[in-house]
Amino acid sequence: MLGLRRTHPDRLLPVEPDTRAIARDLYHRVAERRIISPHGHVDPALLRSDAPFEDPAELFIVHDHYVTRLLHAAGADLASLGIGPGAPKGGSREIWRTLAEHWHVFAGTATGYWLEEELSGVLGIEEELGPQTADRIYDEICERLAQPAFRPRALFERFGIEVLATTDDPLDDLGHHRALRESGLPGRIVPTFRPDAYLDPSQPGFTARVERLLAATGAPATFAGYLAALESRRAHFIAHGAVSADHGVVEPLTADLDPGEAERLFRAVLSGAADPAQQRAFLAHMLFQMARMSVDDGLVMTVHAGVHRNHSRPTLERFGADTGHDIPLPTTFTEGLRPLLERFGLRRDLHIVLFTVDETTFSRELAPLAGFYPAVYVGAPWWFLDAPDAIARFRSAVTETAGFYRTSGFIDDTRAFLSIPARHDTARRADAAFLARLVRQGRLSLPRAERIADDLVDAIPRAVFKL
Amino acid sequence: MLGLRRTHPDRLLPVEPDTRAIARDLYHRVAERRIISPHGHVDPALLRSDAPFEDPAELFIVHDHYVTRLLHAAGADLASLGIGPGAPKGGSREIWRTLAEHWHVFAGTATGYWLEEELSGVLGIEEELGPQTADRIYDEICERLAQPAFRPRALFERFGIEVLATTDDPLDDLGHHRALRESGLPGRIVPTFRPDAYLDPSQPGFTARVERLLAATGAPATFAGYLAALESRRAHFIAHGAVSADHGVVEPLTADLDPGEAERLFRAVLSGAADPAQQRAFLAHMLFQMARMSVDDGLVMTVHAGVHRNHSRPTLERFGADTGHDIPLPTTFTEGLRPLLERFGLRRDLHIVLFTVDETTFSRELAPLAGFYPAVYVGAPWWFLDAPDAIARFRSAVTETAGFYRTSGFIDDTRAFLSIPARHDTARRADAAFLARLVRQGRLSLPRAERIADDLVDAIPRAVFKL
Amino acid sequence: MLGLRRTHPDRLLPVEPDTRAIARDLYHRVAERRIISPHGHVDPALLRSDAPFEDPAELFIVHDHYVTRLLHAAGADLASLGIGPGAPKGGSREIWRTLAEHWHVFAGTATGYWLEEELSGVLGIEEELGPQTADRIYDEICERLAQPAFRPRALFERFGIEVLATTDDPLDDLGHHRALRESGLPGRIVPTFRPDAYLDPSQPGFTARVERLLAATGAPATFAGYLAALESRRAHFIAHGAVSADHGVVEPLTADLDPGEAERLFRAVLSGAADPAQQRAFLAHMLFQMARMSVDDGLVMTVHAGVHRNHSRPTLERFGADTGHDIPLPTTFTEGLRPLLERFGLRRDLHIVLFTVDETTFSRELAPLAGFYPAVYVGAPWWFLDAPDAIARFRSAVTETAGFYRTSGFIDDTRAFLSIPARHDTARRADAAFLARLVRQGRLSLPRAERIADDLVDAIPRAVFKL
Repeated sequence: MLGLRRTHPDRLLPVEPDTRAIARDLYHRVAERRIISPHGHVDPALLRSDAPFEDPAELFIVHDHYVTRLLHAAGADLASLGIGPGAPKGGSREIWRTLAEHWHVFAGTATGYWLEEELSGVLGIEEELGPQTADRIYDEICERLAQPAFRPRALFERFGIEVLATTDDPLDDLGHHRALRESGLPGRIVPTFRPDAYLDPSQPGFTARVERLLAATGAPATFAGYLAALESRRAHFIAHGAVSADHGVVEPLTADLDPGEAERLFRAVLSGAADPAQQRAFLAHMLFQMARMSVDDGLVMTVHAGVHRNHSRPTLERFGADTGHDIPLPTTFTEGLRPLLERFGLRRDLHIVLFTVDETTFSRELAPLAGFYPAVYVGAPWWFLDAPDAIARFRSAVTETAGFYRTSGFIDDTRAFLSIPARHDTARRADAAFLARLVRQGRLSLPRAERIADDLVDAIPRAVFKL
Repeated sequence: MLGLRRTHPDRLLPVEPDTRAIARDLYHRVAERRIISPHGHVDPALLRSDAPFEDPAELFIVHDHYVTRLLHAAGADLASLGIGPGAPKGGSREIWRTLAEHWHVFAGTATGYWLEEELSGVLGIEEELGPQTADRIYDEICERLAQPAFRPRALFERFGIEVLATTDDPLDDLGHHRALRESGLPGRIVPTFRPDAYLDPSQPGFTARVERLLAATGAPATFAGYLAALESRRAHFIAHGAVSADHGVVEPLTADLDPGEAERLFRAVLSGAADPAQQRAFLAHMLFQMARMSVDDGLVMTVHAGVHRNHSRPTLERFGADTGHDIPLPTTFTEGLRPLLERFGLRRDLHIVLFTVDETTFSRELAPLAGFYPAVYVGAPWWFLDAPDAIARFRSAVTETAGFYRTSGFIDDTRAFLSIPARHDTARRADAAFLARLVRQGRLSLPRAERIADDLVDAIPRAVFKL
Repeated sequence: MLGLRRTHPDRLLPVEPDTRAIARDLYHRVAERRIISPHGHVDPALLRSDAPFEDPAELFIVHDHYVTRLLHAAGADLASLGIGPGAPKGGSREIWRTLAEHWHVFAGTATGYWLEEELSGVLGIEEELGPQTADRIYDEICERLAQPAFRPRALFERFGIEVLATTDDPLDDLGHHRALRESGLPGRIVPTFRPDAYLDPSQPGFTARVERLLAATGAPATFAGYLAALESRRAHFIAHGAVSADHGVVEPLTADLDPGEAERLFRAVLSGAADPAQQRAFLAHMLFQMARMSVDDGLVMTVHAGVHRNHSRPTLERFGADTGHDIPLPTTFTEGLRPLLERFGLRRDLHIVLFTVDETTFSRELAPLAGFYPAVYVGAPWWFLDAPDAIARFRSAVTETAGFYRTSGFIDDTRAFLSIPARHDTARRADAAFLARLVRQGRLSLPRAERIADDLVDAIPRAVFKL
């Protein structure tokens, strides 16, 4: 995929030589395959405008909360990293030096590994970052970014991206996506319907947001009108190429309410009169409704569960959301998803992909659920678990119960455009490593492993995400 | 044990050559040792009648929910797999073809591994299953099944089974077991007392069942009568060779109630007037009473906890129980078992074997409990965790705290008779792999590892299950 | 560090030869480095008096509940192991024989590994323990213990301990520590402030204890007086070299109460009128207050959470606390610590080190928390998790999210003085093994891994514990 990095051709592969040799062959089958990225957070404006990246800090640090969180833990104030409303726009070189000074804290982390891959594989910079090399590397990056070959569209092409999904507000007009489709970019940029803020009454601004939704679609302020408005926006997304709807919830709770009860709850949450239990019940019912709509319109339903968003209130108030302090919680799916699965779980045309940051659920709940319900797929390791060792643990925990064909294929889930190849490459290497071990242990034939390696990067994500 | 399979003599063993060599030696010490199977679900009528197996679908698919669940997840309707009251009896070849067409979904799974071992090791079929080979393999299996050497008793003998425990209803007259004992079969078929349906008031039909129990034993409809009836049936089981009583519970909850309270609860649950909290308290007390009875009569107490049985109500209603949709739940033992352990946990003559499908409890609760209480043993990896990687995780999580001698020895827990050798062989290989690593890392001497390998398949299950 | 054991120079290192070679080099860099032990339970009187160790049972068995618990599980009565108020003082040789007869139950355990290391590395006894060798080894140990080279101070010096933290009651006058500082011992013995029994109203004797605290400091019986008394004792500890305060809690729950509410709760808990919910709220607020005091006085705050202490009431009543039946519970930090972290979590001068025996929290909560909050560090694997495989799982679960520099460095947490070198050596080997794999997989350069290996035993614990 990358082709530029000269060092460590066998990185992430098993340490035992014979197993490594098998893994190497499996990896090289898929290393150059085009990237299917069915869930992520890249800004479509980036590709539409095709403006050169501004500077190294902007590109690698300021917008990537994976990077800023560890710098923050190591003592850097977020403002000094260019984050927050009052952050000074200048100082890019200073921000870069902060990263360089703290480079050792990234040792062994997935983020550090990706950054190295980006510097080396994308930008061709092989020198190790550190206080001594910070300025030289900064200048090198600037030099690269000034070249046409490093503008977003050129990189998009070079990365070999076939499908790239963005994540979008239900009221987004999707103009960027329309423009991109007409632009002749060699790949599909598809939007993803992400309605959390319109479904969860506990989120600030919920009522105003729903009112905007109703106004935008001309729907009446009833529960039926609200559902119709959501359906209408989903149709708009589908018309612009969307294949999935994404749902981020603290608990994966679902509830099948009768229409009268739903109408009463809708009025209560809209008026702000609902207590937390009612808000929770409403959201549980809306997750159920989302499955019902997915049955009707075919959008794949992805669920990202179990995260306490914006854990540090002082940080949220000063710097905003997505600033590195979302912290996972214990999660359980077995009971909470039952109402949804009793109604829709046996359908083959419905695809529900479950993502978790609580790895205890892999063997205990997700693999057993996906190993029975035709509608359920186990999502690839996500967020804190999107890392080489965590991928190995995921495959070990899931495969013996659910095999490979009930998993989703890799998603990169990133807003860091330059990290896309590194992340997919990591997954390809980690999966090759896992498959190679099964071959060496007589649990898979080599031809079967080769077929699975191919399918994991192509047929599987294509089937699961209806691409 | 098997001796027929020519391929992959080192399957499941470690990938590193020196460690593999040690593991191979450890494995070969025990590979041919007779099988002790102290917990399982084989139908004793199978061995009593010794009727030839009907056909490949009947033998490998229809009755094995490990197999049908993955076919169902892949899109096959359970009825098309011969399941359910109205299922067509014919169509065995069609069912077999369905398996063959979906063979790839079993790649990497424990079930797929066992099926291959059964085809190869038991039936001598080395060709890989697939759409092209389905009919040929089907015919080959039929040809084998028609031979006397493949009838149940011949296989029982060939498998080298010394002890095989079945699981039986408390009111079973155990006629099959009596007949088998008198039949000269070279091994013991022992019943297991499984009273769940007579203890859990939340199960449909509870009252009628308890009334049948009281009638059968002539006991009065009081709590004391109910206990006496259970004791009487346990005595009947013991007289027929039973060594253990088995308890499947959602939560491993126990309670020590005073007799008056127990009597009141008994009346409430029997009359159907009890609310869920009372039902839960009654069951918790009955688990406590089961331990008390085990102290009195010596039956080993096995507890299988933490599963939501029959998760998909529509499937339960259409196809019945045990159709592949039992899903694990988060489980905790530390608090729930405390009343039982405070009263009986320090006794050496009581043996309580704890099984879990929530692997988080291995290092957190089960190993610490078994590492102190003489009565507690950590059950072998069970159900979704009865698989090579899961066994490795189990040993890693349990051994450093509780060693090998506080674990139960392997149980196969299967209703698939043909899979028994494959399952025991898998455990023997996985344990040899684990032991070999400890030897290579200087944590065990080779003679010590050899002794443990021997004990794991013989002395340990014999001691834990009082065989 | 040890230098005496001739067998298995590569114990605990990876099995693959090239990885082992890297690990060996990394290990040998740090094998002889002086020991920093910032948390443990050695009795300072041992070093002050420098009396010879009494006998082998006293030294290795009676006071080490890691050892007695497995013997108890195997059937030995605790009284026969010399435990409890009425235990016979004689019989040391009999106790030793009990260990020797049950030596096999320790195979594969961390405790067994440490005992071997102590016998071999500290005492130079290479023969394997067992019924045949028990008496000979007993005599050999006695012969060693009679030599001046095996008295506590001589061993302290030989072990190369630079810092050894004890754990002490807030009202301890710390006379031992004062005397030891003046004694010219080549290392620091520092006390640790452990106020649990003065903070948790649910513990028996709470009121009397708080009254003693108030009397000792002359503080009034108000909440403010109580806080001042605690502050005064902390100051006393700091004056005697303390660097940390330690908190053992069942749940890591914190609460920020207003002064009026705190005063009311204080009166309720002191008078014994508080219900369990109020007791819980009080303790949660006191954990919050402890963080506030740590901000003020600089003591590092260590939290050991998630253990049900003294699980077996009959054993507690007969033999007392710390007799081997503390059992872990499911633990979660994300919500419970939030009040504390909202107020103090962004401070760099506050150090909170979180220890767990629920390894599910490593990747799910501890690494994400320490990867954002400057105040939070992930504690080294503790108690049941302080073992080679568990350390490997810890590094795998934590590193990809939080790196190495947000972890605490190793703590031995032991009351078994002789086990200190073995425990630190185990951690050094396990960390070398982990680092070597990352090097072999191209995830760390060798120089980077060397630097991390060095820092893990020196710079990191020094920085985290402000040494």
